[in-house]
Amino acid sequence: MVIPSSSVSKATNSVKSYTKGKFIYSFDEGNKNMKELLGGKGANLAEMTKIGIPVPFGFTITTEVCEYFSKNKDYPAEFAEQLQDKLKKLEVRMVKRLGDVRDPLLVSVRSGAAASMPGMMDTVLNLGLNDETVKGLADKTGNERFAYDCYRRFIQMFGDVVMNVEHNLFEEAIEKMKEKKEVKMDNDLSTEDLKELVNEYKEIVKNHAARPFPDNPLEQLKLSIEAVFKSWDNDRAKTYRRLNNITGLKGTAVNIQSMVYGNMGDDSGTGVAFTRNPSTGDQNFYGEFLINAQGEDVVAGIRTPLEISKLEEVNEVLYKQLLGIRDVLEKHYKDMQDIEFTIERGKLYLLQTRNGKRTSHAAIKIAVDMVSEGLLTKEEALLKIDAKQLIQLLHPQIRKGAERKVVAKGLPASPGSACGKVVFTAEDATDWATDKNEKVILVRKETSPEDIAGMHVAQGILTARGGMTSHAAVVCRGMGKCCVAGCTDIIVNISAKKILVGDIVINEGDTITLDGSTGEVMLGEMDMQDPEMTGDFKTVMEWADSLKTLQVRTNADTPHDCKVAIGFGAEGIGLCRTEHMFFNEDRIHFVRQMILAKDEDGRINPLKELKKYQKEDFVGIFEAMAGRPMTIRLLDPPLHEFMPEKEDKIEELARDFNMTVEDLKLTIGNLHEINPMLGHRGCRLGVTYPDIYKMQVQAITEAGIEVQNKGIDVDVEIEIPLVGMLTEYKYLRDVAKQAIAEYGNEVNFKYKIGTMIEIPRACLIADELAAEAEFFSFGTNDLTQMTLGLSRDDLGKFIPAYIEKGILERDPMAGIDQQGVGKLMDTCVKLARKVKPEFEIGICGEQGGDPESIEFCHNIGLSLVSCSPYRVPIARLAAAQAAIKGRM
Amino acid sequence: MVIPSSSVSKATNSVKSYTKGKFIYSFDEGNKNMKELLGGKGANLAEMTKIGIPVPFGFTITTEVCEYFSKNKDYPAEFAEQLQDKLKKLEVRMVKRLGDVRDPLLVSVRSGAAASMPGMMDTVLNLGLNDETVKGLADKTGNERFAYDCYRRFIQMFGDVVMNVEHNLFEEAIEKMKEKKEVKMDNDLSTEDLKELVNEYKEIVKNHAARPFPDNPLEQLKLSIEAVFKSWDNDRAKTYRRLNNITGLKGTAVNIQSMVYGNMGDDSGTGVAFTRNPSTGDQNFYGEFLINAQGEDVVAGIRTPLEISKLEEVNEVLYKQLLGIRDVLEKHYKDMQDIEFTIERGKLYLLQTRNGKRTSHAAIKIAVDMVSEGLLTKEEALLKIDAKQLIQLLHPQIRKGAERKVVAKGLPASPGSACGKVVFTAEDATDWATDKNEKVILVRKETSPEDIAGMHVAQGILTARGGMTSHAAVVCRGMGKCCVAGCTDIIVNISAKKILVGDIVINEGDTITLDGSTGEVMLGEMDMQDPEMTGDFKTVMEWADSLKTLQVRTNADTPHDCKVAIGFGAEGIGLCRTEHMFFNEDRIHFVRQMILAKDEDGRINPLKELKKYQKEDFVGIFEAMAGRPMTIRLLDPPLHEFMPEKEDKIEELARDFNMTVEDLKLTIGNLHEINPMLGHRGCRLGVTYPDIYKMQVQAITEAGIEVQNKGIDVDVEIEIPLVGMLTEYKYLRDVAKQAIAEYGNEVNFKYKIGTMIEIPRACLIADELAAEAEFFSFGTNDLTQMTLGLSRDDLGKFIPAYIEKGILERDPMAGIDQQGVGKLMDTCVKLARKVKPEFEIGICGEQGGDPESIEFCHNIGLSLVSCSPYRVPIARLAAAQAAIKGRM
Repeated sequence: MVIPSSSVSKATNSVKSYTKGKFIYSFDEGNKNMKELLGGKGANLAEMTKIGIPVPFGFTITTEVCEYFSKNKDYPAEFAEQLQDKLKKLEVRMVKRLGDVRDPLLVSVRSGAAASMPGMMDTVLNLGLNDETVKGLADKTGNERFAYDCYRRFIQMFGDVVMNVEHNLFEEAIEKMKEKKEVKMDNDLSTEDLKELVNEYKEIVKNHAARPFPDNPLEQLKLSIEAVFKSWDNDRAKTYRRLNNITGLKGTAVNIQSMVYGNMGDDSGTGVAFTRNPSTGDQNFYGEFLINAQGEDVVAGIRTPLEISKLEEVNEVLYKQLLGIRDVLEKHYKDMQDIEFTIERGKLYLLQTRNGKRTSHAAIKIAVDMVSEGLLTKEEALLKIDAKQLIQLLHPQIRKGAERKVVAKGLPASPGSACGKVVFTAEDATDWATDKNEKVILVRKETSPEDIAGMHVAQGILTARGGMTSHAAVVCRGMGKCCVAGCTDIIVNISAKKILVGDIVINEGDTITLDGSTGEVMLGEMDMQDPEMTGDFKTVMEWADSLKTLQVRTNADTPHDCKVAIGFGAEGIGLCRTEHMFFNEDRIHFVRQMILAKDEDGRINPLKELKKYQKEDFVGIFEAMAGRPMTIRLLDPPLHEFMPEKEDKIEELARDFNMTVEDLKLTIGNLHEINPMLGHRGCRLGVTYPDIYKMQVQAITEAGIEVQNKGIDVDVEIEIPLVGMLTEYKYLRDVAKQAIAEYGNEVNFKYKIGTMIEIPRACLIADELAAEAEFFSFGTNDLTQMTLGLSRDDLGKFIPAYIEKGILERDPMAGIDQQGVGKLMDTCVKLARKVKPEFEIGICGEQGGDPESIEFCHNIGLSLVSCSPYRVPIARLAAAQAAIKGRM
Repeated sequence: MVIPSSSVSKATNSVKSYTKGKFIYSFDEGNKNMKELLGGKGANLAEMTKIGIPVPFGFTITTEVCEYFSKNKDYPAEFAEQLQDKLKKLEVRMVKRLGDVRDPLLVSVRSGAAASMPGMMDTVLNLGLNDETVKGLADKTGNERFAYDCYRRFIQMFGDVVMNVEHNLFEEAIEKMKEKKEVKMDNDLSTEDLKELVNEYKEIVKNHAARPFPDNPLEQLKLSIEAVFKSWDNDRAKTYRRLNNITGLKGTAVNIQSMVYGNMGDDSGTGVAFTRNPSTGDQNFYGEFLINAQGEDVVAGIRTPLEISKLEEVNEVLYKQLLGIRDVLEKHYKDMQDIEFTIERGKLYLLQTRNGKRTSHAAIKIAVDMVSEGLLTKEEALLKIDAKQLIQLLHPQIRKGAERKVVAKGLPASPGSACGKVVFTAEDATDWATDKNEKVILVRKETSPEDIAGMHVAQGILTARGGMTSHAAVVCRGMGKCCVAGCTDIIVNISAKKILVGDIVINEGDTITLDGSTGEVMLGEMDMQDPEMTGDFKTVMEWADSLKTLQVRTNADTPHDCKVAIGFGAEGIGLCRTEHMFFNEDRIHFVRQMILAKDEDGRINPLKELKKYQKEDFVGIFEAMAGRPMTIRLLDPPLHEFMPEKEDKIEELARDFNMTVEDLKLTIGNLHEINPMLGHRGCRLGVTYPDIYKMQVQAITEAGIEVQNKGIDVDVEIEIPLVGMLTEYKYLRDVAKQAIAEYGNEVNFKYKIGTMIEIPRACLIADELAAEAEFFSFGTNDLTQMTLGLSRDDLGKFIPAYIEKGILERDPMAGIDQQGVGKLMDTCVKLARKVKPEFEIGICGEQGGDPESIEFCHNIGLSLVSCSPYRVPIARLAAAQAAIKGRM
């Protein structure tokens, strides 16, 4: 979680420091490490200039100027003077002057922030043209058509970007012109056509802009700079930053660069390329180019570009030069590069280089290849892989490039994709899936533990309410099942078995597809793709394991989950929830009998039955874990979760237990709590019903003895949940100890007793608790909810407004809130380790699988992290990355 | 809140330290400051010995021995030797030996812990007698009847206390003997009767005890000591300590004292007295005595004792000596004393002195008198008044001594007493009280804000659920209205309008009486007593005000409450809850219209209407406060609290708003939250509906301008509730600032904007918040609930088990949990004051009226405390006491 804090006050301070600073850097003054100040594009243009790559000369206005401008709607005092200086330097270098009617300097004005925000902010090309300089350009280049082509492009871009004239007015004009001239391509328009078009464009500007088109090139430049700065705060850019968690930036830099032209004839052109294949990671040069075109033509798709390898046929020397540059850049940046180049009359210029985006598959291959090429150390290679992105490799997905008929969008709660027929109840899910052998998507307003069976058989889950850590989301991530949660676009009518999305009605049995990685809901069945796992993946994981210091465990409740997690490299179980075992059809009866018992005597029999089941479960899990450490949490959820909610189920239960329906309803009503999250659950159940905890510990002990006797090691940690007071812990620790002591010398396996840290108070008395307990495990879901005073089941009502208004940058449950919850965790670790320096402290909340949170856990000195089985590889990589960074 | 923590581990340490220590102190070795070690009785016996008051000699076994014994069921190594030494010293001093058949030393064995626990632990008198020594006693005293009277008393007490023989077996035997001898009084039994009784008693012991009666006096002594130690942990003593919040003690001391006899004839006697009247505080010597009796006879009420002043007639010299001792003790202890004395053959002995318990009325009078007598400074006098007890003076009460037919007992949720006819709904309460002019008691399972109107007109409230800080409890304390909450003894059947208590049925219209100070529920109407307020009370409050440094404010929402609170000395309002104003009949309509509005436009009209009402309210309160500072909290509770719950009300509302009942139910259902306490409320409402907060600030501003224009000063603090993030605060602070700014230069009154600190996270980022806010106010109700992960509305289900099992010592909401919540508060204050050293920080939770919590608030440096109007005097006194202690 990133909650914006004192960033503004910091900004205020830095305003003071830079008002007398250096606001503009020529390309020969910067380097690649100055991204924060020069933006990614500017820093890399400077770096390329420095290492001798051909780059059209220019200069970069810093991001600090943008920040100043955002706040003050004006520039720092000495900015204008510095701009004059740098412009002069550029003119001297290019031997051209801006506005020179004989040989005008033309420049591009491009945005470029520290983080890549492709297409989000504005660009102006060919700046410096007017009715006079265009003639000079024509004369000097001997190409009047080219000059007017540039001019019309300039008016169009400047009109759109700077003067806020509707883009499509220009488009319509050029289309009309092409119709009139009966040509298809822009390129087919004649010089005269273009001159006419320039006049039409100017007319459009005159009629639609607030002010006349500025002929003065310096004014054009200043207005363009301002427009780029303003574009930093446009809605599109803000949304992009929000969606991509880009925070803490000062603004965009502005790059002013002398123009080079790919549209000066057939010896000119422009292209983009990746130094390796960004999709597969293969070592082939990957890209495309267009002859006689400017950069925007490639993007606009006006003509079909050619594959980059075809450049060899067009101009072998140039191609080899480009391959050389590819090589230099990769070696220099030690990473796959995404480049833009332009060829002007046979001369090659690089306009941009940056680390290329890639699929996680490619990321892994490139990392492994670069290590074997000797380009990177293992440590460097691991740091280049985005741990979060690994999830792509671990779930099935909608086939890439398939057309998506998105009808609604919710939260991407559990990755992977699923399609199936819509059902609205857990019972229907079971019926359809089991009896009719249908693939189903379970749609609920929100899920509850009663829905677990239905969730198990469903391909995916869609809920209208709940956040990233709602019941549905948590359970699905645990199951590795696709889930779209909190989809407020839809109205779910359970009784009518209908979903309403705007005008669309989705009925029971209709097929939909969910993308749990994007939150998209689509009509119909989409084509799926299996997860890919290669040898390189294994290599990367082995490197990670050799470098990480955090132990990585998994949250698993069944032998099956354990096996999946061990397959993914889990070193143990950090959280085994015993209550999930209670929901099984054949057990829930005894659970309910236990709950409905009037006293301890009435609980004896159902507890005896439950012990059998629990023991069986534990035997299975102990065997699956084969000596790996595992933490078993004693009963945690409030008892009402085990009771039926629906009328017919209640009637059935009343018959089963020979009760009147009214009595049963009264009992269930009595279990109701106003704030169940802060109510009678966790160790509070243990205190009121110690016989339940005793039964669970007996089951663990009996299973432990049995499995150890088979020669399979057992290493179990018994965890008491929701402890907030030392006396609670001691009372229940003694209950557990006495239960084990009853087995005397038979007890032959390894065990510890400890507690979950999920109540803020537990962090504050961690020294006292650590003196008595044998381990801690942070339950950061509850700890976050209590520390922030937020119920994850209810935050859907206001968090959207929080994000909308910039109060929060993302779901506060998604990662550890380092400023708040993190401080408590740090306090807890420090207090506990003061008492026992080697004390085992882990984390088993949802955040145990979040790379940023894992890094934080490493930094505050935790012993282990535990996450859902499908996130184990992510956690292993993130743990290694944290360790590597920690050593740097 | 006192949660037992490291006491046991500390104890373990001290075991080490005292196993080689001094376990027994003769009366000439101790003093009154050694209560923790010697118990109150032992320390005062030593003190009296020191200052020359006649005290039968003896020695005290320390509380540490009791602690050791509790843990180890054995004594420290050198204990036996020390006991021999002290016994020898006693024998030398008394010139008698234990077990000497000619002139036996007899002793009493009495318990005595550091805190007074009257009658809770065991006592053995006349120890040292057996068939032989009784003869020696008879010979030596020349009074055979006396000797055998002592012997039968000894066997009875020893048999009961040490040998666990049913007490009434002895009672039956003596009764039978009296019948047989046809006498009424024990005193009328002859020597021979007593000898026969001794034999019968011994027979009883033989038949009912596990072992024979020990004849060896040293064995008698050792067994008695052990019995006293064991009595520390008996249920009666544990219950007493729990009920009286006596915690942190090591155990009881044991006092071994040579016997003196009030039953040696008509020149002997025994009595108890208070040095001043404990009920009124008057300066008259107050007590009673019995001639020819032992102490237990006074208590047993066998004969009617005489008033102490009659002693003058019996023995003038002795009476004067007693008056002299009274004087010496009061001067020495600087406090009213509660003494026990015995006269043995004309010689006066003091057996006990201690500070006397008194009514709060007496406490105040004594304090004021002792200052004017020059006995105490004002500071000392204030420290002697129990601040908590003051509540007695502030509410009407059941007349003292009236017989109580208690049928059920709940939590003493709001003090005072009330009687009235039982009604079960808020509507009925209003109907009966308003239309029929009846006094009513409103009985509910639990109350909700919808019940407010009914609560207002009721004399008192009785609920079956909820704790000391449930809705009913909090609201009643705020109203100064009697409340018994969480009365689990009763079953409330709202629909049948019945209460079941065991076999008793209480119907609508039946009269009951509640005592909100004890939690008792009684049948019928009881006689009431008005609160007494005297000039001394005023004097004490003036002293307190002159010495305290904390500002004392009140929590008040209406001009009426403000006036009451000012009458009680409130210096301002620490919490004005704006939402209480919304529940009024004529406003709730607009509140609901606002909630049901689909968008901001739909809210314009209802907000406009509500603003009128809010402005009116604020004008009234500003005028009542007349320039005193007041904190107004913006809307806090979740919106569903404003919607009706009952079918008929929902139907009515649907008609009002032209909605279908289904639609309205759907809307209300959508407002439902799983954990409302952690949900959409407080500043989260402000973020989602800034127009509501804006309206409230406008109402405040318009009221402020209007009142200031009348020449009445306005000093208002606008408080944003439930802030957990800096960005939340800043966003809403700006909403408020802009709302005020709209009134431009008209704004002529004093205001600040600040925030409530009730989310744990807010404490952790207090430095950032303090940099932006102008004041903080701790909302310790919510802060405690979140820090402990406890919902006060739900804890009734498990807290009884917690207290039962010693995990908690009292309701965790009753005072500040200093180890947990207190640490967060301290962190918060330190962080905030680092940024702004003079920053205003207050507390306005329920704990703002709890003396211990007030002392804590003083110690961590808060600026002010705020409590309900009726607790303001308590808070003023507690604040002064904290300040005085702080200077000591």
